[in-house]
This record gives sequence, C-alpha cells and structure tokens, in this order.
Amino acid sequence: MSLRPTPGDKFSFGLWTVGWQGRDPFGDATRRALDPVESVHRLADLGAYGVTFHDDDLIPFGSGDAAREAAVTRFRQALDATGLVVPMATTNLFTHPVFKDGAFTANDRGIRRYALRKTLRNIDLAAELGARTYVAWGGREGAESGAAKDVRAALDRLKEAFDLLGQYVLEQGYDLRFALEPKPNEPRGDILLPTVGHALAFIERLEHPELYGVNPEVGHEQMAGLNFPHGVAQALWADKLFHIDLNGQSGIKYDQDLRFGAGDLRSAFWLVDLLETAGYDGPRHFDFKPPRTEDMDGVWASAAGCMRNYLLLRERAAAFRADPAVQEALRAARLDQLERRTAEDGLAGLLADATAYETFDVAAAGARGMAFEHLDQLALEHLLGAV
Amino acid sequence: MSLRPTPGDKFSFGLWTVGWQGRDPFGDATRRALDPVESVHRLADLGAYGVTFHDDDLIPFGSGDAAREAAVTRFRQALDATGLVVPMATTNLFTHPVFKDGAFTANDRGIRRYALRKTLRNIDLAAELGARTYVAWGGREGAESGAAKDVRAALDRLKEAFDLLGQYVLEQGYDLRFALEPKPNEPRGDILLPTVGHALAFIERLEHPELYGVNPEVGHEQMAGLNFPHGVAQALWADKLFHIDLNGQSGIKYDQDLRFGAGDLRSAFWLVDLLETAGYDGPRHFDFKPPRTEDMDGVWASAAGCMRNYLLLRERAAAFRADPAVQEALRAARLDQLERRTAEDGLAGLLADATAYETFDVAAAGARGMAFEHLDQLALEHLLGAV
Amino acid sequence: MSLRPTPGDKFSFGLWTVGWQGRDPFGDATRRALDPVESVHRLADLGAYGVTFHDDDLIPFGSGDAAREAAVTRFRQALDATGLVVPMATTNLFTHPVFKDGAFTANDRGIRRYALRKTLRNIDLAAELGARTYVAWGGREGAESGAAKDVRAALDRLKEAFDLLGQYVLEQGYDLRFALEPKPNEPRGDILLPTVGHALAFIERLEHPELYGVNPEVGHEQMAGLNFPHGVAQALWADKLFHIDLNGQSGIKYDQDLRFGAGDLRSAFWLVDLLETAGYDGPRHFDFKPPRTEDMDGVWASAAGCMRNYLLLRERAAAFRADPAVQEALRAARLDQLERRTAEDGLAGLLADATAYETFDVAAAGARGMAFEHLDQLALEHLLGAV
Amino acid sequence: MSLRPTPGDKFSFGLWTVGWQGRDPFGDATRRALDPVESVHRLADLGAYGVTFHDDDLIPFGSGDAAREAAVTRFRQALDATGLVVPMATTNLFTHPVFKDGAFTANDRGIRRYALRKTLRNIDLAAELGARTYVAWGGREGAESGAAKDVRAALDRLKEAFDLLGQYVLEQGYDLRFALEPKPNEPRGDILLPTVGHALAFIERLEHPELYGVNPEVGHEQMAGLNFPHGVAQALWADKLFHIDLNGQSGIKYDQDLRFGAGDLRSAFWLVDLLETAGYDGPRHFDFKPPRTEDMDGVWASAAGCMRNYLLLRERAAAFRADPAVQEALRAARLDQLERRTAEDGLAGLLADATAYETFDVAAAGARGMAFEHLDQLALEHLLGAV
Repeated sequence: MSLRPTPGDKFSFGLWTVGWQGRDPFGDATRRALDPVESVHRLADLGAYGVTFHDDDLIPFGSGDAAREAAVTRFRQALDATGLVVPMATTNLFTHPVFKDGAFTANDRGIRRYALRKTLRNIDLAAELGARTYVAWGGREGAESGAAKDVRAALDRLKEAFDLLGQYVLEQGYDLRFALEPKPNEPRGDILLPTVGHALAFIERLEHPELYGVNPEVGHEQMAGLNFPHGVAQALWADKLFHIDLNGQSGIKYDQDLRFGAGDLRSAFWLVDLLETAGYDGPRHFDFKPPRTEDMDGVWASAAGCMRNYLLLRERAAAFRADPAVQEALRAARLDQLERRTAEDGLAGLLADATAYETFDVAAAGARGMAFEHLDQLALEHLLGAV
Repeated sequence: MSLRPTPGDKFSFGLWTVGWQGRDPFGDATRRALDPVESVHRLADLGAYGVTFHDDDLIPFGSGDAAREAAVTRFRQALDATGLVVPMATTNLFTHPVFKDGAFTANDRGIRRYALRKTLRNIDLAAELGARTYVAWGGREGAESGAAKDVRAALDRLKEAFDLLGQYVLEQGYDLRFALEPKPNEPRGDILLPTVGHALAFIERLEHPELYGVNPEVGHEQMAGLNFPHGVAQALWADKLFHIDLNGQSGIKYDQDLRFGAGDLRSAFWLVDLLETAGYDGPRHFDFKPPRTEDMDGVWASAAGCMRNYLLLRERAAAFRADPAVQEALRAARLDQLERRTAEDGLAGLLADATAYETFDVAAAGARGMAFEHLDQLALEHLLGAV
Repeated sequence: MSLRPTPGDKFSFGLWTVGWQGRDPFGDATRRALDPVESVHRLADLGAYGVTFHDDDLIPFGSGDAAREAAVTRFRQALDATGLVVPMATTNLFTHPVFKDGAFTANDRGIRRYALRKTLRNIDLAAELGARTYVAWGGREGAESGAAKDVRAALDRLKEAFDLLGQYVLEQGYDLRFALEPKPNEPRGDILLPTVGHALAFIERLEHPELYGVNPEVGHEQMAGLNFPHGVAQALWADKLFHIDLNGQSGIKYDQDLRFGAGDLRSAFWLVDLLETAGYDGPRHFDFKPPRTEDMDGVWASAAGCMRNYLLLRERAAAFRADPAVQEALRAARLDQLERRTAEDGLAGLLADATAYETFDVAAAGARGMAFEHLDQLALEHLLGAV
Repeated sequence: MSLRPTPGDKFSFGLWTVGWQGRDPFGDATRRALDPVESVHRLADLGAYGVTFHDDDLIPFGSGDAAREAAVTRFRQALDATGLVVPMATTNLFTHPVFKDGAFTANDRGIRRYALRKTLRNIDLAAELGARTYVAWGGREGAESGAAKDVRAALDRLKEAFDLLGQYVLEQGYDLRFALEPKPNEPRGDILLPTVGHALAFIERLEHPELYGVNPEVGHEQMAGLNFPHGVAQALWADKLFHIDLNGQSGIKYDQDLRFGAGDLRSAFWLVDLLETAGYDGPRHFDFKPPRTEDMDGVWASAAGCMRNYLLLRERAAAFRADPAVQEALRAARLDQLERRTAEDGLAGLLADATAYETFDVAAAGARGMAFEHLDQLALEHLLGAV
C-alpha cells in the first residue's frame, strides 16, 4: 500500500475546509478568501478524488441568476479539468441571521418554508453535478433554554421536512440519498439529534427510511465523549453509514475540526481499521479547519496531512490484522466466539440445556482472564510501527 | 396539588437504592445491609407506590430453591401488607466476576447463555409479581480497548438475546415489555448503546420492536453532556418511553446517582414539565444512591427528598404553564407556529409559493428577535417560586 | 432586601456584553453595533453602577488620535451624565490576526512587544477613567499542538510581561491591580493558566505578587467541570479574589456566556451565598452574551435578568443562613467542628493524645452519619422559595 | 536506547496497582489478593526499580504490632533480595468508613486528629524504608453538596494538617518531602485542590513551602479535560514536580487508571518528551489498575506494557528532537524566539521603541503563518515511527 493519495483512495474535501478563513468567536479572519476553482486544482494536485460544497460556498448568498450560472460553470470547468468529482453536497442553513433559531425546526413557519426551498434548490444543483449523497447538518436546530423549543413538535417538523425532501428526490428521479449529520451542541446550546444514535432512531420514523442514513463526524461524537468507532459500527450494522466526516478533536470542548490524525490518535486507528474491514466504500471526506495560525502553505500542508494520516493508519491497521500473533491473541480473547450465535439451538434448546445454567461453573468462568491487555498492547505496537 | 407523596403519584424505588451500602471504588461499605422487607415497609410509609428489584437484590446470588422461595414469600407478604406494587424488575448481570466482559455480548459464548438463562428465570418471577416492565441495563456490555470487542458482532449477539427474550415473553403470554437502559460508560470504558438515541435505533432492528422501549436515566445521559429532557422527548415522540430512572448528576464525571432534584435543577424542572404535559403515565422511578456519608436516617431523608422534589417541581411547572404571561411569551417566541405544519400545501404548494423563497424578506425575518430570554426568565422565576 | 438593582449592589457590565452582535463560529452578526454611549445610558437606567471595556470596544482598533480622543470624551460624558463608574478595564489581545498565536506568549517576539505596548497604552486610559482593576484574559496564549508552544518558556515570557506591567503601574503610581482571568480552552485548543488554581500559583512567582489576583469566570471553570464556588473560595482564602465575572454555562462544552442564573442554578446559589458571606466587596461584573436569537429588547431583558437573578439568589441565600433549622442542620453536620483547629495542642499534644489514635473508636466514628442530605434538602427548599 | 526496562529507568509501581483485585462500583473482585512479597519479586523480574505503598497495602488496617512487624520484615527481605527500593510511600485515608467525609478536612475533629496520627505513623515507616517522597492524595477531602463543606475553613484545616506534618518531618530530621496529588472528583462529587494548579497555589500558603510539591496523575488532570503535559510543565516551571503518576485515561469520565500508553497516546508522547528534556530525575511511577477483565497473567502483561510504552515513547521523542527537519520546523514556527526575553531593554527601552508599536506592521505580522501544522505532522510521524 502506498502512502501517496490517489483518486482510488476516495479522499474528498469540502470547499469550506481549505477555504476557512479563520474567523472564530473571538477573532477575525486570518486568511484571504479562496476561489473554489483554486481549491479544486490544489486538491487535485494533492491526490484528492472529490470536492463537496454548501450552496453558499460555491454561490455567494444572494447571488443573482447570472452570477450563479457563472460560478457553477467555472466550478464545473475546474472539475472537468482536474477529474475531481462531487460525491456530496449540502445546504448552508446556519450562517445567515435568518437561521438563528433553526431552519427546518425554526419556530417561525416562514423561515422553515424558506429553508426547505433553499435546500430543494441546491438539491437540483447537487444532482446536476452528480452528487449521490446530500448531507444535512442541522446545526441551528436546537435551543439554549427549555421553553424555547418544544422538542416533540420540532421533531414533527423535522420529519415533515425530510419527508418532503425525500418526496422531491423520488419525484425528480434523482439518484441521491440523504445523510444526516448529528452534533450535540455548538452553535446551539443543545442540538436536536445530538448523536449518531439519535439520528439513526429518527430516520426510522420517516416515510421512506431507506433514503436516509447518517454522516457521522469524528469530532461531533467526541464532543459528547462517545467512542467514535463504536458509533460508526452501529451505523454500519444498521446499513446506514452513507458518508463520513473525518477530522480530529481533543476531547469534550468546543468543536475543533483538527486535521484527521490530530486529536485522539488511537480512536483514529480503530476507525480506519473499521472502515477498511467493514467494506465501507464511500468517500473518506475530510471536514476539518486548518488552524487560524496557518497561512495558505499551512492550509495545504494540513490537507495533505489528513490524507497521509489516513494512509498511514490504513497501513498499520492492515498489518495488525495480518499478524499471526494478533490472530492468536484475538482467539485468546475469544473474539471468535463472539461471531458465533449464542443459541443456534433456539430458545427451547437453551432452556433445556442444563450446562447453560444449572451445571454451569460460574466461578470457573468468572476466573478466566480475557487477555485484552496483551491484545491491546499488540495493537498499540502496530500503531506505533514498533512490530 | 399536595407536596405529600401518595400512591397516585406513582413513585417507585429500587431495592438497591435505599439498600446501597456505600461501597465505592475507593471505599468500603458505610452502612449495614437492609432487609428488603424493611425497605418495603419504610417506602410505603414515605408514600411510595412501588418497589423494584434485580434478582440478586431479593434472592442472594447462588441461593438454593428453599432460600429463594422463602425470600420471595417474605417479600410478597410485605407487598401485601403495605399495598406496594412491583411495576418493574430487572436482572443483575454486572456484579459477579462472570460478567466482567459482558453478559449478552460477552465474548465467551457460555457466559452469554448463562446470562440469558439468569434473565429468563427472573422474568418468570417478574411476571409472577405483576411487573409490567422488564428493564435491561447492559452495564458490562462494552470494552476498554479497541480490539477487545467487535461491535458489529456484539450488536448481532445483543439482537439475538433480545429477540430470544421477546420470544419467551410472547410464548409465555406475559404482559411484560422490555425497557433498555442506555449508559455511555462506567463500569466499562465504553458501553454499547451509550445513549437514548442508540437504544431507540437498536430497537428498530429487533424482531418485535413493539415489545421494546427505553428506560432513560437522568445521570446516564448527562454523563455524555446531553440534554436529558431532549432525549426523553425523542423517546416520547417515538412512543418508546416505557419507564424512567430519576436521579441527579453534577455534569460529566463518574455516575453519581444523587437524589432527584440534586445536580442540574433546571433540567429537572424541564423534565417534570415534560413528563406531566406529555401524558407519561408510567412509574416515576428513583434510581439513586444515598451518599455514603449518610447513616440510615440520611437514607430515608434522601428517599423522601426525591419524592418531595418531584412534587415541588410539578407544582412549579404547572404554575408556569398556567400563567397568562407565560402563554403570551410563548406566542411571542412563536411556539404556536412550531405546532403548525410547515407545508399543509404539500410539496407542490411549497414549490409554487413565491413568498416562500423568491419574495421572502430574509433580512426582515433575520432581524426579528425570538424573545427567548424573556421567556426563560419567566421560567426561572416560576422555578424559584418568585412569581 | 429589594429585588430592584441599585448602584449599591455594585453591578457592572462590559461594553462587549450587551454590545455583542451575535457573530459566532457558524454565523454572521444578528444585531447592529451598539454605541458605547447608548450602552452606558441603558445600563444606568437598569440600575447598574459600572461599565467596563476592552480598549477596542471603546476606540476601534487602528483609530487615530483624534478619533480616540473623541471616543473617550463622549464616553466620559456619558459616565458623568449617568453616574456610572469604570471599575475595571482590559485589553483586547485576541481579535486581530496578529494575536493568532498569542500576545504575551506569542512565539514572535515582535508581537509580544506590540501586545505589551497595546496594554500599557490602555492601562493609562484605565487609570485616567478611575479603574482600580485591570483584567488580563490571555485567550490566545496557548496551542493546538504539542510542539507549537514550549510551555515553560511561555511561562517565562508571561512572567516577564506581568512583571513589566507591574513595574509600570508602580512607577506611574497608579492605584490599579491586575486580575488574571483563567480559561481552559477556546479559542485555543489549550490555554495557559487554565483554571483559577493555575493562575493563583503563577502569581506567586511574580516580582510583586501583591499586585495580582484573579478574575474567575463562572463558565470558564465550569468548562473544566470544576465546582465554581470551590474555586472562588480558594481565591478568597488566598486573598486573591480581585474581581469576578458572572454568567451562565450548561456544562462542559463551548463557552456559552449565558446570562447569570442560566446554566447551573444550584452553583449560582452557592456562589452568591459565598460572595455575600465572605465579605467580597468588589463589583459583581456580568460577562455574558445575550443569545444571538435576541433583538435589542432581548439584550436588555437579558441584562436585567442578570441583576435580578443575583438579587433573587442573594435573598434566598440570606434566608437560608438565617433559618434556625438550617443552623441546627449545620451543627448536626458538624460544620462548627470544621471551624475549630485540629490541634490547638500542637504536634506534641497530638502525638501524646492516646484518644486521638490508640483508643480512638474508629468503628463508631465511621458509623456516624453526616446528615448532609437533610442539610442539602433544606438548601434546595430555600433556593426554590419553598420554605 | 533499549526497550527493556532496567533499574536505571527508575520505573516504580504501587503495591495497590498490580494488587488491585478488580472491585468496582458495580462489581465484585475478579482476582485473588496478591502478597506484597510476590509483587516485589515479579516487579523486579520485569525490570522495575522501585515499589511504593499505602500503609494499609502493606499492613492490613487494624493489625496488631506483631503482625505489623512481621509484614514489614517480610517486605524488607523481599526488597533486599531483589534490590528494589521504596522511593515513595503514602497513607490510605479513603477506604475505611471513618474517612467518608474526609481525613484532614473531615468535619469531625476527632477524625481529623486520627487521620493525622495515622499519617504520622506511616511517615516513620516511610523514612525507615528509605522513601524520599511522601504522597498525599486527599481523595475524600470534598463534598457532594454545597453546605456540607465550608471550603475556606477546610483549606484552613488542610494547611494546619500539612504544616503539622512538615513540622514533624523537620523535627525528626527525615529526608522526606511531600507531594500533593490533585484530583477533581471521584470518589467525592468535588475534591479540594482539584488540579495541579490549585495544589501549587495552596502550597505557597504553607509554613515551609519548600517541603511540598505535587504528584500529578495523568488521568486526574484529564478528568478535568486539561492538557496533562501543560500542567506538568507548570509544575516543573515552579520547581515543584516532586513525583509523577503515570497511567492512561480516555477523556472526561470516571477514573480509569489504564496502563500507561493507553488512552490519549499523543499526550503521552508529549509528556515523555517533556520529562526527558526537562531533566526530571525522579521515579516514573505507574499508578494504574489492570482492567478487571484480566487474570494474573494479564496483570503482569499490563505492568510490562506500562514500562515498554514509556521506553517506546522515549525513543520516539528523542528521535523527534534529534531530527534536523524538526529543528528547522521549530525555527520556522519561531520557537527560538520564545526562548528570548521580550524586553532585554527593560520597560524604558520598550516604551521608547517606536518599532514596537507606532511603526509596527500589524497587518504583516498578522499575515505570517506559524507553520504549526507542518511541525505537528512531523511529530505525528515520529510518534508513528514513520520517519
């Protein structure tokens, strides 16, 4: 396996990532605006295969039709010139003051209708540019105080919105699925659908659940202190991992959007191991923000680092799985037994089996060690390249 | 509304709560063992309506049939004498060393079978004692290190287990539903189904989803920094709030199990407001641990406090909802609009409506204040009894 | 005690609080800029006694001398007209890109020198306007990655900076003390002097420790999960509580700057109890941000709420302390013994006292209950106004 | 550098670490008790140089003089046989119910006196066994509710206690210093001196500050979300790093005490880099708990892993520092300038220097990138052994 990214690795970046100018709650922009066309060319040079966008990243909010057309044309030309694809698109429903209380769940009905129309418009563009996934991050769908949002009513509105969007995609015959992106908080005090679990559960109440999956983001789950690979595994288990946002986060705090590989390195290793062994074949999408300390050289170094770190971890995870000592340690830890059904004999068989309960040697079973420390040490040494 | 608890308030307590002896990771027991019969009588005196138990709370682990019979008989006599009911029961799948790597998802298949049999046995007792809800807290279903648990395989085993338990309940004709209790961590580094959302999502993949709901616990969700009333609202929205565990927690840290009303008071207020207005009619179950600083007098003071605090908050929440100034503030914050469908006119109507997008005055809509601060101040003053 | 704020209550506000326009990491401003003169008048109308500022709040960054002079003159006139005082001032060392890697600890020496000069200049203005406290929040003094900052070298530079500032104040004969404001993170991944404790410790290594104290902020300590009243108590114990920033925060997450009384209500109660009983006589300074959902009416409602909530909590805390049942409960919890020296008899006496060890009845002492639950329930009922 | 531990590496272990039987808040012991003598021999075999203990680890609580004497003799013989030293000892002031409300700050004065005597007695043993550091972890010094502890009074008592202990050590002429170990919470809701900063600040108010330093523990600071190497750096900067507890923790949650190298790997790398470059020459003390899933083989694997991981990280950190590309990247990030004084020219020089302010090109300085991403990527690749 090579450590040089190629389109086959399916690395994609949002325009808003390398294009982030470094404005934060306490500080002004530290970098110039970046032309999407420049971003496309630079990302292609670095080995990416795809680029993604919010409507407003590509077409400044409030642009007239001509400006819109021009922006799309230039972008499409850059895609053609570089071979980059647009695997995903999304809507900006959070920057403009109109969305300060939410979009699909804003208390104000007019704003909800506007948000839907803004989204529908960009879905057309997404389909036109060949995107297969439409991400929905409801960053403003939430509240800072208890009475400000009736959560059950808001979930009704959220369901209504996604049902309408699904209807539209079906009616238009677009080959497009939705990926909901959970986040626990920031910019709202509490956001609806705060974790992968909440989003997965919500999807099951929609009209056409098959159209919707999740787009988990490393940092978002880690902001709730959750184990990211575990959440992704549950999404995979439910056949709902439609897309993924890779970045880094150092624990429970504000949303850091560090480059992939920064933050919790061990978790990144297990994530890559999971994605590569579970057969996930969608984009490896980086949703990060190059720190505002960086100039443009730093931006590109940071983007390159995201991809290189994925490849490094992929190499290490593969070596871990291939190592006979690891395979033996997995058996010692009885992972093979976990693959096996608990009761192939069915309920009746289980109930009839005295060895399962009446004569089961609880003390002996409780005394057996699991040998997890040995196994985890092997994993660490593979991660460190020390094997 | 009275502040004296009565059975009509449906307050219930686990035997393990008032019976907790104060053993913690760094210290030995500070209180004597409590006879379940004594607990039943004391709880009845305090105004509770129900008592709940783990199998091992009532019948010490490893008891023979005679001891088992005797324990159940004495317990049943106490119930009869006091009028207390058993609305819920559950299994202890975490104390004995045999469960150190989990129960339904233990890597060891024999342990999984044993855990199922232990559960099935106690389901019989639960049904016999009239319980309508069977809680399942998988506190040991998890891992401290990445390779020790294949999460997708573990979810397969967890599904297998719950499907078998559901089959049993159906076959036996028990009027019993399961309530899964999520927790993010402790005693395992990461626990499967870490939040209400993850549990709700998991349930949808079971054979008979209608048999399963959730049993959210205040502190468990708050250990992930999540808004507890929001999570409960999503469970209610999905018709899955089968039971609830009330207690207190002071932020993201070890599981504190403080009495209800301790910890995040504002969140407790919104929770009671939600339960009382959403028509939840199940038990208000306290799953708390009187701090180990307390002697038995403190234990009962703490238990009484749980109920009194619920009643105090219920009174305050009702006054908040009844206040005309609040109702006006809710309208000013446009909560009435949130109740209304976003697109009664359907997708076609929405797309055809120029006022929804083309002529929508985004700037004006963005400039309108939501008046949430006024509303939240009213809520605070009701909570403080300052109105 | 009245619930209407008066200057005697010593409530002060930063210009940047009511003047915050609602720009956050994901959204644009939702409110117009506010003229400092308007703020002064409105705050005076609401009952505040003081107003505070960063240099750039009053005099836009980069203003020439004439504009500066004009701004200061208008401000001073507003102060004179309203009677508001300026108890504190501070420097903006975080908004401009030049401070992206810090100010006093920026790796770039030129930036460090510039930051010192910017501060010295504003100290002159602070002194001129009568401020007695100069706050230093080093929000950009930190790092996102390990090698980017040599922390020991940075602490050397931080010490150098504060020693120079102290020297200047002494040489100028200003009646001004410094209050360091700790924060664990945001906008940097990790900030130097992350908690009240770290700041208190750092001060002891300065040339003139007596010139420096701390300015703890509710939300900043709570972002590290720390008990705010405990931290303030340690600052008071060390005679170092020079100033305080009051606001609200809902647990470990991004910096919320909610109005005082929002967030952790119980902690706010104990904080007011502490400040009022410990003889703190400095300003009660609100450093909050009215949520961006609010228009200007909401801003002033939020500001008024800060003061009203302090007064409400002051009333409740006073009633708690005055209640004979509380006083008895405090004795039952042996708080009176905590006031007493452990060994008035000195080391020799302690060593010679067989009752202290050899004959001490450990079992009996361990069995005595502390009665904390009863005491805490009394506190809760006072907080709720239910007594 | 070798990856096999030798006494020269100064690795030490607490008896309570490998001897932990796996009792946790939800489960019973999973391992047998371990004889201290066996631990000494096994640790020596693994390459450790030292062993440490709480009084009750070595001499069961309540032992008579003969049993005490026998236990000490056997232990000393094991030390002699293996060459292991006792660099540190400490007191168990948390397990017995008598300490449920604290030891040096228990509300009950008799308990405070008892705690002091228990400590003084073990200081004699510590000195006798050659310990140079006496650790004080006040795990029970805290509270779960606001009125239960008057923090200022408690700090008075804590100061009184440490002043008495210091007096004793001075009077006895022991070559022993105290290392205070901070922790934010667990087993108490909030613990006094919650972080390294708070402990450092407290020390400065003692009679003989020079006798006291800190013993930071990886997981304890990370339980408050703090950057551990930053806290250790501040302790080193203050000449107060008297001892250190190495282990692993996965974010803000219950105290995990994972083996060193587990948890936050990146932080562990920077910690080792700091200890090795800052000239810390004390013990590398592992205070961990082998997970209760492990049998005794797993315990020793886990202990060996702690040491091996330290050595691996030491090797990687040394290579990082030696790499010319890193040295160049550090200069590019202007770390060399951070070493330089900000104002060698003094206050007067700084004020007179127009280039520092009047003619300083703020825009240009703000536009320069810091190149931290490149530097951090180099660090990551050294950590991964990918260079």
